[in-house]
Amino acid sequence: MLRLGVGAEIDAFDGRGGMYRAAVSALTRDAVSVTILGSVVPAPEPAIRVTVAMSVLKGDKMDGVVRDVTMMGAAVMQPIVSTRSETSLATLAKAHRAERWQRIAVSSVKQCGRAVVPGIPLPLNLSDWLGRAAPDATLALVEPSAGGGRVLSELPRREVVNLLVGPEGGWTPEELSLMEEAGVTSVSLGARTLRAETAPLVALAALLEAWRAW
Amino acid sequence: MLRLGVGAEIDAFDGRGGMYRAAVSALTRDAVSVTILGSVVPAPEPAIRVTVAMSVLKGDKMDGVVRDVTMMGAAVMQPIVSTRSETSLATLAKAHRAERWQRIAVSSVKQCGRAVVPGIPLPLNLSDWLGRAAPDATLALVEPSAGGGRVLSELPRREVVNLLVGPEGGWTPEELSLMEEAGVTSVSLGARTLRAETAPLVALAALLEAWRAW
Repeated sequence: MLRLGVGAEIDAFDGRGGMYRAAVSALTRDAVSVTILGSVVPAPEPAIRVTVAMSVLKGDKMDGVVRDVTMMGAAVMQPIVSTRSETSLATLAKAHRAERWQRIAVSSVKQCGRAVVPGIPLPLNLSDWLGRAAPDATLALVEPSAGGGRVLSELPRREVVNLLVGPEGGWTPEELSLMEEAGVTSVSLGARTLRAETAPLVALAALLEAWRAW
Repeated sequence: MLRLGVGAEIDAFDGRGGMYRAAVSALTRDAVSVTILGSVVPAPEPAIRVTVAMSVLKGDKMDGVVRDVTMMGAAVMQPIVSTRSETSLATLAKAHRAERWQRIAVSSVKQCGRAVVPGIPLPLNLSDWLGRAAPDATLALVEPSAGGGRVLSELPRREVVNLLVGPEGGWTPEELSLMEEAGVTSVSLGARTLRAETAPLVALAALLEAWRAW
């Protein structure tokens, strides 16, 4: 229920970077009209465009991931179904998860002061996504135990980058091979094992700091 | 209930850096004896010693903070009561919160592969903590709206550092003055507002990356 009356001032945003101060000018049962009073300067976007490609986690853990990566300035959050995701594209579609995540992203945008809502495309299987994404612009977070991951400070800054993060059980050896063949760069963040739902947040923070892109 | 039988192998750690492979050698109702088979190499500690001084958050949100900063390698997690913490030292003591946080830290250490349990001292009021901490080694995270925060990449690396993080409502103007007078350095991480419970995680990740200390 909208609790605002005529004359109330609100911040309105178009989800693509515009943010406005507006006053409610008319209210009906189904619609609200506002008069734009002026532009508002939203929180700036990061200096690099990051797509977080995140393996779907168990239960409602993806809700927190969407909220956090939105707050950190991700441009796109691509849900990925990988071997250990414990779900399928069909299950996600039936549960209307993509719509739910989009609503969470909108709510997180409001909370953090951004004026850009990250795109949340329909989920894809890992192999399909690898076929479409630019593999040379893709960094895959690997667990310390997998070994061989490079550190962010060794990598040249990119303006556009994909950050690929695995599910609770990590990547399978087959998936690691698939990524390597595709030309994806493996990165690791320290030697301590991160929880899957915090890994994208930690990786985004490290990336924005490493590339001075906050 | 311990579900292991004689001969079962376990990893045991002393909480101060030692980790061992051991076999259960005897079981009674109240005790278990193990024979140490050899040392295990635990996940290394970060190259810098970070104390996270965290304003106590509402409800059970501190549980997640303790879990996350432990996983990120913090050496100490100092709970702080600040003006907007919505609790008091007496309330925290009565609820045995410090003991609870210590148990969570132990559990998080096991999960992430560390062999060092971070110290969790009894909570302190902000002004008392500022009187004891080394203010020139203290970075206080301030909200983008507060302005004036420096960025991590401008700061020289320190081997020992305190990271001071505020509660949901942020710092009061009086607290910001108090910190400034004490010689604390204000830092900010981008222009988007972080949620209080994710701020310490994001700040630790950025710090470890900025100072190449993973």
